Amino acid sequence: MAEQKMIGRQSVSFKNPPCILGRASVAGSKEGEGPLGSFFDYIEEDPKFGADTWEEAESNMQKKAAELALENAGYQPKDIRYMIAGDLLGQLIATSFGLMELKIPMFGVYGACSTMGESMSLASMLVEGGFADKILALTSSHFCGAEKEFRFPLQYGSQRPLAATWTVTGSGAVIIGKKPEKPEKSEKQKKEETAAKKCNSNPYILIKGITTGKIVDFGVKDSMNMGACMAPAAADVIYQNLCDFNRNPNYYDKIFTGDLGYIGQRILLDILKERGYDISKQHMDCGIEIFCDETQDTHSGGSGCGCSAITLTGYILEKMHRREWKRILFVPTGALLSPVSFNEGGSVPGIAHAVILEAEDA
Amino acid sequence: MAEQKMIGRQSVSFKNPPCILGRASVAGSKEGEGPLGSFFDYIEEDPKFGADTWEEAESNMQKKAAELALENAGYQPKDIRYMIAGDLLGQLIATSFGLMELKIPMFGVYGACSTMGESMSLASMLVEGGFADKILALTSSHFCGAEKEFRFPLQYGSQRPLAATWTVTGSGAVIIGKKPEKPEKSEKQKKEETAAKKCNSNPYILIKGITTGKIVDFGVKDSMNMGACMAPAAADVIYQNLCDFNRNPNYYDKIFTGDLGYIGQRILLDILKERGYDISKQHMDCGIEIFCDETQDTHSGGSGCGCSAITLTGYILEKMHRREWKRILFVPTGALLSPVSFNEGGSVPGIAHAVILEAEDA
Repeated sequence: MAEQKMIGRQSVSFKNPPCILGRASVAGSKEGEGPLGSFFDYIEEDPKFGADTWEEAESNMQKKAAELALENAGYQPKDIRYMIAGDLLGQLIATSFGLMELKIPMFGVYGACSTMGESMSLASMLVEGGFADKILALTSSHFCGAEKEFRFPLQYGSQRPLAATWTVTGSGAVIIGKKPEKPEKSEKQKKEETAAKKCNSNPYILIKGITTGKIVDFGVKDSMNMGACMAPAAADVIYQNLCDFNRNPNYYDKIFTGDLGYIGQRILLDILKERGYDISKQHMDCGIEIFCDETQDTHSGGSGCGCSAITLTGYILEKMHRREWKRILFVPTGALLSPVSFNEGGSVPGIAHAVILEAEDA
Repeated sequence: MAEQKMIGRQSVSFKNPPCILGRASVAGSKEGEGPLGSFFDYIEEDPKFGADTWEEAESNMQKKAAELALENAGYQPKDIRYMIAGDLLGQLIATSFGLMELKIPMFGVYGACSTMGESMSLASMLVEGGFADKILALTSSHFCGAEKEFRFPLQYGSQRPLAATWTVTGSGAVIIGKKPEKPEKSEKQKKEETAAKKCNSNPYILIKGITTGKIVDFGVKDSMNMGACMAPAAADVIYQNLCDFNRNPNYYDKIFTGDLGYIGQRILLDILKERGYDISKQHMDCGIEIFCDETQDTHSGGSGCGCSAITLTGYILEKMHRREWKRILFVPTGALLSPVSFNEGGSVPGIAHAVILEAEDA
């Protein structure tokens, strides 16, 4: 039995695919003005989210996303068995301070901007393994907090090279649980089904499998060109997903990377072409979709944990609910640097985690 | 079936308990001179572990622990399905740079000094759920890296208050997998059994259950008194473990917290006494055991992810192998602060994760 779940070298195929029972996207005002603005559940005009510091602002944003996901699905915090969450700040303080009032057992995770893929992968396995009925998986990033943490204080007004991406201010949350059963509906099941329907309109969105990434280091040291740092890891995990499941790229309606941006996208497509796969028809990048460079001056695209998180919870899942897309490979991408490793001259290795999402009728 | 695994509000009871198939402890020279020195697999005299920076030193140490655990158990990196690892440094750079050469799919986790409990909890669930045959769970801390990250540069020679703990330089790793089966031994099973025996001598050490902690904040703001910050979280998770499994403390031979130190221990015992449990006979703290304050000037005790990790992999598991202890509740404890949250006046919330270890004859 156990062997059937493990597919190939890095993948899991779920026999009883977990379901996305709830979701929420909280965005900053710049993201709200972007091409996906109309898709987000909540747009906050105050960049400090009512707080005194950027870190507390991000905590408030993450808390808002968690609360909204619960509210949208009709659950209370006590209905949630675990939270699996993280952010970009050192020691995950946005997450710790943002979520502690929920009083839910907590696993903190860090995969840089791949964190949404990591938290969803772990949550799916724990649900399918029978260790939890419902898990809240979420992450966030904040432009100002990330600039302060990784680059320069905003007050310097530093110029950004064209290869740079713009950290998204946003937090996305999903509730992952067992697919509500049809027959012999108990009160609990009815409640769950209603919640799932409310969120899923008609089709259920199932997590059919995952491919977990390895750290890939091509030796790129330019923290202002994160796309180039992460593209090899994204290529690696997409290649492995296609191999492990023995699929062609056209199995998926879309293959969504997290935040490669325009430069990273070109590298990704080139690497995969060299390895025998042309995904140019399927590929989209959350970082490219979320901003309009011409009017928003965001250069290579959006980035940050929040970029893939709110593009997923606001845009991708909505398109799946509307039956425009049926099968999505969601591949958040992370750059594993810290201000210390960068200042010490270290390279910027990448990691990416792939999650297979499929819409199925109830 | 699924319901049986979830016990009470925060715990999991494993029906097919995962087994510790391999382990390794790598320690610094101060730890080697301490009371547990003879238990560690490897003691490094060079505080920089052959590297140029403290961060790279910690990476080398973590890599050494991973390699030793594999070697002790007779496995290759390709035998390991996932790594679940983390450290105290911002953005987990000790882990990313230390483990990337192993090329194993990776989940980065952060639970401050509770990380060993978090990684073992997740690894156990993934193994029992059938998502992996073997998982490498590990963590590390380095005194100099931690002082630089959280406190003052060593060159300042700052005086440490008596409530302060001393960050342990060490890395501990375990390989968690399915318990090797007795009948109809295949070559693979024989290999696994040999590996497990080599590590476990006679009894197998099984992970029978886990209790996952919530973030607990009593509002303590003193980062030089981490024991006080973490004790409420430790008390909470131990209390929940005893409730969920309906046990008395004397079910366990020892209840080991991670790094509460002398001050945190007193608070822990007081809180639990108020809540109806006297664990004074069972309680031990890795931070108290690892150093001798009288001769090593470590004040309240040892701390850091490495403290509980090497006390577990060097000392506790060895005592279980020698049949001196049969049932252990292992409770690494973490303080969820960052230099930024501390400097901004934030409190220091705590978290702790409990892992039930039991020695059973093969």
